[in-house]
Amino acid sequence: MTDQLIEKVMDEIKKRTATVQDSPATGQRVFSKPSLTEFVGTAIGDTIGLVIANIDPTLHEKMKLDPKYRSLGILGARTGAGPHIMAADEAVKATNTEIVTIELPRDTKGGAGHGSLIIFGAEEVSDARRAIEVALGELERTFGDVYANDAGHLEMQYTARASLAINKAFGAPLGKAFGLIVGAPAAIGVVMADVAVKTASVEVVGFASPANGTSFSNEVILMITGDSGAVRQSVISARETGKKLLEAMAGPAPSVTTPYI
Amino acid sequence: MTDQLIEKVMDEIKKRTATVQDSPATGQRVFSKPSLTEFVGTAIGDTIGLVIANIDPTLHEKMKLDPKYRSLGILGARTGAGPHIMAADEAVKATNTEIVTIELPRDTKGGAGHGSLIIFGAEEVSDARRAIEVALGELERTFGDVYANDAGHLEMQYTARASLAINKAFGAPLGKAFGLIVGAPAAIGVVMADVAVKTASVEVVGFASPANGTSFSNEVILMITGDSGAVRQSVISARETGKKLLEAMAGPAPSVTTPYI
Amino acid sequence: MTDQLIEKVMDEIKKRTATVQDSPATGQRVFSKPSLTEFVGTAIGDTIGLVIANIDPTLHEKMKLDPKYRSLGILGARTGAGPHIMAADEAVKATNTEIVTIELPRDTKGGAGHGSLIIFGAEEVSDARRAIEVALGELERTFGDVYANDAGHLEMQYTARASLAINKAFGAPLGKAFGLIVGAPAAIGVVMADVAVKTASVEVVGFASPANGTSFSNEVILMITGDSGAVRQSVISARETGKKLLEAMAGPAPSVTTPYI
Repeated sequence: MTDQLIEKVMDEIKKRTATVQDSPATGQRVFSKPSLTEFVGTAIGDTIGLVIANIDPTLHEKMKLDPKYRSLGILGARTGAGPHIMAADEAVKATNTEIVTIELPRDTKGGAGHGSLIIFGAEEVSDARRAIEVALGELERTFGDVYANDAGHLEMQYTARASLAINKAFGAPLGKAFGLIVGAPAAIGVVMADVAVKTASVEVVGFASPANGTSFSNEVILMITGDSGAVRQSVISARETGKKLLEAMAGPAPSVTTPYI
Repeated sequence: MTDQLIEKVMDEIKKRTATVQDSPATGQRVFSKPSLTEFVGTAIGDTIGLVIANIDPTLHEKMKLDPKYRSLGILGARTGAGPHIMAADEAVKATNTEIVTIELPRDTKGGAGHGSLIIFGAEEVSDARRAIEVALGELERTFGDVYANDAGHLEMQYTARASLAINKAFGAPLGKAFGLIVGAPAAIGVVMADVAVKTASVEVVGFASPANGTSFSNEVILMITGDSGAVRQSVISARETGKKLLEAMAGPAPSVTTPYI
Repeated sequence: MTDQLIEKVMDEIKKRTATVQDSPATGQRVFSKPSLTEFVGTAIGDTIGLVIANIDPTLHEKMKLDPKYRSLGILGARTGAGPHIMAADEAVKATNTEIVTIELPRDTKGGAGHGSLIIFGAEEVSDARRAIEVALGELERTFGDVYANDAGHLEMQYTARASLAINKAFGAPLGKAFGLIVGAPAAIGVVMADVAVKTASVEVVGFASPANGTSFSNEVILMITGDSGAVRQSVISARETGKKLLEAMAGPAPSVTTPYI
């Protein structure tokens, strides 16, 4: 009887301390839809999507944005940079917008990685809104190859055709296959990167580490391009190695949602 | 009966895991007053106030401080930058001290913002001590328009007359009204900034974001000056918008103490 | 009876939420030894030790490493920079390796300090592996003068003879005594540094603070060299003062393992 009671209490605790992150499958959990034209929606990773129909010119200038765009789409999150950049990449493909800025705070709420602030520019607010809607809708998928446990996280991303967000964030060539490989703590990322480049003939677009190219996150990040089959195979091999290492540190590291690669 | 028991256990857990942050109203909670002349007091936000009567000359030089000041007042915190700068501003107004340095670590104990390290210089240690006492005493108030929930936080500050700490930290003009508007995650801060500048005729002193002007915090920060009524109105409008957005992410975001603006 | 039950539930909760950090004494807790030649072991602070026998040449170049070393030893952690640098220092003394890079992410899983990524270079993988084994074995000791509570942490390190890792990380002279003094929140570190230099005749090698020389951590760090007795005495005095101040903020701040200085 006592054991049952303990289980009951543990369930209650779980329920009461649950956050959006703990229940990623729920996706868009809005507590109270605000009556503001700026609000578009929320998503996994403490993500919020917003629009400004007609940004104030003074602020526009202070933010150093291209004056061409009056309407902004704003995608921000506490947890997640890669998933948001990939989601933004699909959003620019699908809409008449451009990526005007991508900034990566050191966040993840005590975790090892980044949060994100991505701003889209558009001439019409309807385009900005559509871009944010598309991006929010993509996050469930782009969190699919994020794996986490108490010791850290891994992230893999893959696309057959990189667009403007990937190009802006990582300098990867437009229209070509792109793969992203992240390991945290950073030591794991070094081995994953080595495995990735040894697996298939891919081109290294970038390599970032705690003191070079990250916002002091505890990650090593490899960005690759090349033939789509080769990129995909490299990403998959790195994932396999990364999972073994991260799980040796702190047990099972399941996908945050559902793997897509 | 089981339900009652669960409530009891939940209360017990709450009590045992309570931290200084969870009970901000208690303000200065000193666990054991150390018998050190350097200790002045503690306050909300894991803040500690200290003095050094006669700083070692070698250290003075390594810290790149103005050799004019032998006595230092030191205000440091895990959580809070704006509240501490505003408190320091009152402290320099009230005492014969100067602000020699303001540094903002990326902290808040897993939150989205900054901690702080603020050093006052004085010729007499009694002045340095008095400055720290004044600053510690102000924090209860300056945390009043900090609002937080699991997804992030907002911060608003307002003064009719900016002094040396605000000038040093934000470059705002001395003696004029000053307003500070912070939204985290940063996406919320963008919309708050836009609302602020559209509300009244104010001058933008500064705009900071994760990769520009913060220590990679997940914040957008707007600093404004101008007519005191206009500044205050802008701050209030931004607060209203910010609260709606933050609460859409994760429910109620109450004041950490008691609003003052 | 209810009280007993509450205790039982609290114990259960403790057990279920225990992490590697909560049980530092266990040292190397490997969840599942991966069948990968790269894996060496794990240790306190969410530390992992890895080797790469023959790093891919493309990656080698992207990582900007000296091409002389084909084999890498990789030591990475979520929590701890000083302890890992000191452990790496013993490892280079004991093996035929060199330190090729030391990077310090802003981490500690919501704490005030750094994690680490330290890479050893070797001509033979057996040397790289041996270095990682030595380093992992040293961590239990080098975490001995790390003291922590809910408000922050202190760290003291001392060696009679600094070697290549200490030289690379802190610029301290080779073969001489070296002491490291860290206080977090940073305000505490300022007073500890002042006490240290006033205690004995030591030379200040470096002083780091949130905005200068750290990765925006909430620490003040003092690095000293000189006569071994003087360095040791300075470190001990700083520790005494630091403990009093940190414990005034949030109660007992015990050693993470067992003090060695």
